[in-house]
Amino acid sequence: MSGTLIGVGLGPGDPDLMTLAAVRAIATAPVVAYPALPDTPSLARSIAAEHIAAGAHEIVIEVPMTKAREPAQAAYDLGAERISAALSSGADVAVLCEGDPLFYGSFMYLHARLARRFPTRIIPGVTSVSAASARAARPLAARNEVLTVIPGPLPSDEIGARIEAASSVAIMKVGRHLGRIRDVLTTLGLAESATYVERATLAEERILPLSEAPDPAPYFSMILVTKGADPWL
Amino acid sequence: MSGTLIGVGLGPGDPDLMTLAAVRAIATAPVVAYPALPDTPSLARSIAAEHIAAGAHEIVIEVPMTKAREPAQAAYDLGAERISAALSSGADVAVLCEGDPLFYGSFMYLHARLARRFPTRIIPGVTSVSAASARAARPLAARNEVLTVIPGPLPSDEIGARIEAASSVAIMKVGRHLGRIRDVLTTLGLAESATYVERATLAEERILPLSEAPDPAPYFSMILVTKGADPWL
Repeated sequence: MSGTLIGVGLGPGDPDLMTLAAVRAIATAPVVAYPALPDTPSLARSIAAEHIAAGAHEIVIEVPMTKAREPAQAAYDLGAERISAALSSGADVAVLCEGDPLFYGSFMYLHARLARRFPTRIIPGVTSVSAASARAARPLAARNEVLTVIPGPLPSDEIGARIEAASSVAIMKVGRHLGRIRDVLTTLGLAESATYVERATLAEERILPLSEAPDPAPYFSMILVTKGADPWL
Repeated sequence: MSGTLIGVGLGPGDPDLMTLAAVRAIATAPVVAYPALPDTPSLARSIAAEHIAAGAHEIVIEVPMTKAREPAQAAYDLGAERISAALSSGADVAVLCEGDPLFYGSFMYLHARLARRFPTRIIPGVTSVSAASARAARPLAARNEVLTVIPGPLPSDEIGARIEAASSVAIMKVGRHLGRIRDVLTTLGLAESATYVERATLAEERILPLSEAPDPAPYFSMILVTKGADPWL
């Protein structure tokens, strides 16, 4: 009888934004696994720390941040092997995932490697997009408005076209692309109304008009643009 | 000293998908407010029921489901008046919101009417999109993929163009538009791989290949289309 692979969405960073289901899954798991950058404390673990059972076995998946895909894929291969061993021994494994496991989450790489062989459960979490919009008090979408989530690393012309096509936009992973994205928004006449949100719900959270945003911005930063915001008006 | 208006995201329906922050806000609020269809029990209240304090005052906002905007706007005017009276008396008011308050949530209409006059706090919640993707075990977006959320009532040609432009799509509020949307997906060659999700995480949840979906579908239904799903492959 093998254990269950549980992808646990932890929400955007404030431990109070974990769900009851997430807390229960973490507190009862004999094994917890989480990604971490080499030689860096895991943000996922820090969010869940208070609820991890004393004596739980911890599997750290060290994922290098490289442009090439191979090193990260190798890290997930190794992590999946170690998780697989625990599941085969009958232990449930809670994989700690910042935000929502299936929304730009590394859990997908583990799921792809393990879900065919083991029972799997996914606990959705509050996304950084919902968190940023709540903290900035800016609506994401109302009525028949279209929301598009755009990764900041995409080419400027593609970002511009997608912003034009949507009523509401969340631009993720802004980081070093901030200046370039700000130029796109300026051209579209939307820079004035755009909001910059950094590390929403974390202690270091910063919310600023885009014009005052740091350039380059940290990786965990976002730009919100609301064109419709229908009920807001 | 006036009370605080608190928009509380309750998540998609399973009470275990409420956040710790939401539970605390509900349990400590002297006044809770929530929308309901006329003569219909409130889904929002049913999600939060277990945590509402005994003796809490409840403000029911009866919102008619009409095509015309005026009747609903009048209902929010009246609801905002009653909430305003409670806030002015110094009581915090927790407004119960299915899903996330700023993601197609009626809380926006109350916020627009009250936020300039009273201290306001918004607690983000797990969206029905994250819930549907978790329950269907289908990824929303990875790496530099673009996710677009499309309301089903939009015209077919617009829905088609937006599906073509995105790597991943969640079509909301499918309801009576299901057949029309399925035709669009068939034309794009995406119907086979599309997943129908009804009332994700509720007791009546149904997850089916789009080809087996009921037509018309209930209002709380969604279609997920993942083109990239990169790590999934």
